[in-house]
Amino acid sequence: MANDDPSSRRPGVTPRRVDPLLEVRERKRGRRPGDAYVRIVRPFEEEFERTDEGTLVASERTVLARTGWTAGLRRLRTILIGRPISSELEEHERLTKVKAMAVFSSDNISSSAYGPEEIMRVLTLAGAAALSLTVPLAALIIVMLGVVTLSYRQTIKAYPHGASSYLVAGDNLGDRAGILAASALLIGYVVTVAVSVSAGVAAMTSIIPELYPERVVIGVAMVVLLTLGNLRGIRESGTIFMAPTYLYIGVILLVILVGFVRLVTEGGLPQFVVPAAWEGLESGTQVLGLFLVLRAFSQGAVALTGVEAISDGVPAFKPPEWRNARTTLTWAATIFAVLFIGIAFLATASGIVPDPTEQQTVLSLLVRHLVGSGPMLVLAQVATALILVLAANTSFADFPRLSSFLARDGFLPRQFAFRGERLAFTTGIIALSAMAILLMVVFSASVAGLIPLYTLGVFIAFTLSQAGMLVRWYRRREDGWRRGMAINGLGAATTFAVMLVVGSANFLQGAWLVVLLVPILMLLLWSIRRHYHGLEDHLDLERIPEGREVAVEPIVIVPVARLDRTARQAIAFANSISATATAVHITNDPESAAELRERWPEWAGKTELVVVESPYRALVGPLLRYLDALQAQDPDRPVLVVLSEVVPRHWWENFLHNQTALRLKLRLFRRPNTIVADVPYHVSADR
Amino acid sequence: MANDDPSSRRPGVTPRRVDPLLEVRERKRGRRPGDAYVRIVRPFEEEFERTDEGTLVASERTVLARTGWTAGLRRLRTILIGRPISSELEEHERLTKVKAMAVFSSDNISSSAYGPEEIMRVLTLAGAAALSLTVPLAALIIVMLGVVTLSYRQTIKAYPHGASSYLVAGDNLGDRAGILAASALLIGYVVTVAVSVSAGVAAMTSIIPELYPERVVIGVAMVVLLTLGNLRGIRESGTIFMAPTYLYIGVILLVILVGFVRLVTEGGLPQFVVPAAWEGLESGTQVLGLFLVLRAFSQGAVALTGVEAISDGVPAFKPPEWRNARTTLTWAATIFAVLFIGIAFLATASGIVPDPTEQQTVLSLLVRHLVGSGPMLVLAQVATALILVLAANTSFADFPRLSSFLARDGFLPRQFAFRGERLAFTTGIIALSAMAILLMVVFSASVAGLIPLYTLGVFIAFTLSQAGMLVRWYRRREDGWRRGMAINGLGAATTFAVMLVVGSANFLQGAWLVVLLVPILMLLLWSIRRHYHGLEDHLDLERIPEGREVAVEPIVIVPVARLDRTARQAIAFANSISATATAVHITNDPESAAELRERWPEWAGKTELVVVESPYRALVGPLLRYLDALQAQDPDRPVLVVLSEVVPRHWWENFLHNQTALRLKLRLFRRPNTIVADVPYHVSADR
Repeated sequence: MANDDPSSRRPGVTPRRVDPLLEVRERKRGRRPGDAYVRIVRPFEEEFERTDEGTLVASERTVLARTGWTAGLRRLRTILIGRPISSELEEHERLTKVKAMAVFSSDNISSSAYGPEEIMRVLTLAGAAALSLTVPLAALIIVMLGVVTLSYRQTIKAYPHGASSYLVAGDNLGDRAGILAASALLIGYVVTVAVSVSAGVAAMTSIIPELYPERVVIGVAMVVLLTLGNLRGIRESGTIFMAPTYLYIGVILLVILVGFVRLVTEGGLPQFVVPAAWEGLESGTQVLGLFLVLRAFSQGAVALTGVEAISDGVPAFKPPEWRNARTTLTWAATIFAVLFIGIAFLATASGIVPDPTEQQTVLSLLVRHLVGSGPMLVLAQVATALILVLAANTSFADFPRLSSFLARDGFLPRQFAFRGERLAFTTGIIALSAMAILLMVVFSASVAGLIPLYTLGVFIAFTLSQAGMLVRWYRRREDGWRRGMAINGLGAATTFAVMLVVGSANFLQGAWLVVLLVPILMLLLWSIRRHYHGLEDHLDLERIPEGREVAVEPIVIVPVARLDRTARQAIAFANSISATATAVHITNDPESAAELRERWPEWAGKTELVVVESPYRALVGPLLRYLDALQAQDPDRPVLVVLSEVVPRHWWENFLHNQTALRLKLRLFRRPNTIVADVPYHVSADR
Repeated sequence: MANDDPSSRRPGVTPRRVDPLLEVRERKRGRRPGDAYVRIVRPFEEEFERTDEGTLVASERTVLARTGWTAGLRRLRTILIGRPISSELEEHERLTKVKAMAVFSSDNISSSAYGPEEIMRVLTLAGAAALSLTVPLAALIIVMLGVVTLSYRQTIKAYPHGASSYLVAGDNLGDRAGILAASALLIGYVVTVAVSVSAGVAAMTSIIPELYPERVVIGVAMVVLLTLGNLRGIRESGTIFMAPTYLYIGVILLVILVGFVRLVTEGGLPQFVVPAAWEGLESGTQVLGLFLVLRAFSQGAVALTGVEAISDGVPAFKPPEWRNARTTLTWAATIFAVLFIGIAFLATASGIVPDPTEQQTVLSLLVRHLVGSGPMLVLAQVATALILVLAANTSFADFPRLSSFLARDGFLPRQFAFRGERLAFTTGIIALSAMAILLMVVFSASVAGLIPLYTLGVFIAFTLSQAGMLVRWYRRREDGWRRGMAINGLGAATTFAVMLVVGSANFLQGAWLVVLLVPILMLLLWSIRRHYHGLEDHLDLERIPEGREVAVEPIVIVPVARLDRTARQAIAFANSISATATAVHITNDPESAAELRERWPEWAGKTELVVVESPYRALVGPLLRYLDALQAQDPDRPVLVVLSEVVPRHWWENFLHNQTALRLKLRLFRRPNTIVADVPYHVSADR
């Protein structure tokens, strides 16, 4: 009652402060103003710890505690991705080399499963005899992998805090080059997820053809599983993804070993008998020209795309980060080389040709040919399917990290730089997942449709990164700079050549889409940065020589729809912060307005009421014009509009309320010098 | 500067009031506090008119004036649906009888285009000889239409403010019956739009088969056009839709006239020669049993669905409403009867049989047979296509009106009861349009798929309405109640019988969906009303014997992310309304927190700063727990959270800002005793 009347505000009496450092003092019963506090209790000491004057440290409880239906959501989230992890534990979330290889190299290593086949498939277009080029081309790719690996070993050492192409190119060649590399990589990562998961699903559906019609749904489910795994945080995702990678490596190494043992002991391998059904199918239709060899090569170059992953992820390694990362890179390249050349050599030596009906992979033909159709074949197929799906995980490690770098530099919205509860870059993970799912749905999870988009982006980034290192060596002239320049120069030339080959050989099949999307993405990143920079100029206090903001009392307006408790509560709040609050009733019904005015004094005390009749039944327009008129009288004072809103018991009931308040808020948000206060009325709270 | 310090609030000085009735006084230059105002100017007199003490009347300008990019939207809206119409003009927006027939009867009259054909098509299943039943069945339907029309003439007189089945059944048989009628009608109206538009599009595509693949897009475009037309308001929609209705009536009447003249002058009609291609196609496969006759009848019963429309729309007629509505109903029924029986008779007399390949309608065969393939045929086809699309307009008049009745009674969200700028029920029109489009997309605009859903709902409503009238006569026993009871009893019995026939004959073809949806919709309507009623009990001031809400000063908290002008503005606002506002900085970076604290006094004066470290990087959880702790100290005071938000220059830039503020607001909205104030910082305003 007392404070409702504006004139009753007690001048000179400063309201008692609540203690902002949370010591809740129990009051003496029946205390009068001025009485001392009696006892100190700390009911919130489990939620906040006080460190020194003016600082509180929040506990895990502050994150987990929820009430109502959101508590269920919180529990579900904890089940799916685990409890929050404190920033202090960041160091402990680092990866051992063994785990890092599983996380960052599954992309690289898994491409040994289809790389040789893709080369052979192109070569057979010029007849079975052309298959003799398989091993030389595979060897060339291994040599190039060696060059790129040596190159990147230097990059990792030079950039121990993350050797992403974006950073290396940006640092040495300027922002534009960095953004070009970043755009190419971001697109590359999204395509990687779509391709790898689609290929994994295809490996599955070739064992169980009944699943083929559901391949998009299965693929989407896989991506969702990968997303959840990555949201749990990098250490656990390492654990989850370790088994399939090493299973695949072990099984294929074993098959290769069997092959060589038979080759040595039996003095040669049994020859593969080409089924009669394959004769004349789509083979030998073209001449073995340069373009065909280049296409065969560019199919195999897919194998190199995984190298960037480890460089990007240097900070995720256990210390010393750069040394562990270099070692892991060398291991991964070596294992890949052995598997790749081993498969290519044994397949050629056995006279295996790719199945033109695409019902069996070359790898499965080879396994069957060398060790028979027993459990080993099933194991090899399962391991292949698993590692293909998990190859997508490399992108799940890289994309969020790269986008966090971009966000830190203002090229992407800030959320991309925030680590979530589990120290993972939640926004980046979810963005990658959403775009990859979109791509899979659009392309119906077809590997053939997606693969032309695959390699170009990554090789653009490679080239820029190596070129950046070249410039860096030249500028710094540190010890061994000539050797360094030679290595990185060779790397840059090699990756540039591959980029040209891959881009031109696949241009019409889909690489044009990448050529189109990269500049668009660059433009987007630049616009975002220009926006953030412009805003910073605007908001920065240092640059504008001006005193503190003056606290001018606002003009307080309470729109009132009818006489009910929500309105009464809003008016009470307005009166608590202003002695001159005015209620406004906008209506198209003069009769109800007259009734409201009649009952007003009894109901709202001395609070002033203004009735605005709106014969066009609009509410928002007249209210805004009314505010204009008020502010024209006193342009220095802001307007505070106090809105009452009903908080219903159930979320769906929101559709039945507050629609007008929502429209009003959207319009008021853009109005200069206007503040909106929401006074919620909780239906559930019985009062 | 001055007011920034909490202690500088001048006790006892009430801030100057702005005049809430908008007289803007020009101030003397360099005035000091206490100086008198000099001159009165009224810059807002074109926007507001002052009527008497404390009331303003808003002009059209308050609705139309917009700034920035919303001004373009506003202009587009004005172009599409016209300028706002004042409530005072409501009387003038009434319909003449001639226009009302176009608006409300196009559904009814248009069904003469396909009604006879649908009867004949079912009868031919029992062989061409069964076609002799066409005229008797058509006559039966006309008799029933007569009964229903007589029945509804009474209903219109008894309910001059709107004789919707919902009102009549609810008034006499209780709320449950009313809601049953309303649910059946709502569903019926949505299906009517989908069926009529699809049929109209089918009539078009049978002239121009190239359009067939685009039929869904064309149908959706038609619905959008109808929506815009109806949003312009009822009088104009009457004008728009008048021409096609009367064109159709004129053309078909002329054809019938030609037919009868030839019959009399030539002593008989030339006989239709059945094309050889039709022989043996899907005819004579069934025995002419009762079920087949009933199905044939129920196809024809579609013709009766339009009667409810005029009764529903009584308030839209010029006064005297009920008399004009009754006359229009009689006219419409008579015109329909002539067209329907005329087409049925002439088609049978000419020996026309329905085209089993469905490439031509019976009506077009008849026109071609009687007047040849000249311009008359084209005119008849065009008029038929137009009236079929416009038949959907009947539902656009009825659905919004019925839903406004339901909203007024609390069964639908309140928006359905608001008249838009053009006096049309905007929400209802848009809801109908959206659901009809959904239905057309789901059913691929197939008339055959939709028609089984069509008739049942309307006949449920008919039966309830007539039964309601029966009870009303019996209870009131006014003059002529026996005659009234006889007429309405006959009507109720007839419509009930048709309902049973239609429901059972079409059950498996799709009527089951209606049987399923009606109870679900009833449940929804009841839940909405229960919610509104429960809330009213809660909010009603009369029922709770309690004094005024006490104005308790809130605990004011300002979350501060960093030192910039948005934060400074929020703190200034907080200080302007509270002497004890506290800033809270939640961070996971102790270093930046230390820097903030160091610069704080220089920057924010005596405003208190609390730093909360959040090692789990969460922001919302710790802040909420912090508020809990503060309120535990002083449970009576509400918490006011002051948020600063950036208002960017372009709407899309919102994706780069305020995401955290949005999440915070969603959580704070459900927190009891918490008020949120948004202090926007406008980037565009150079200050």
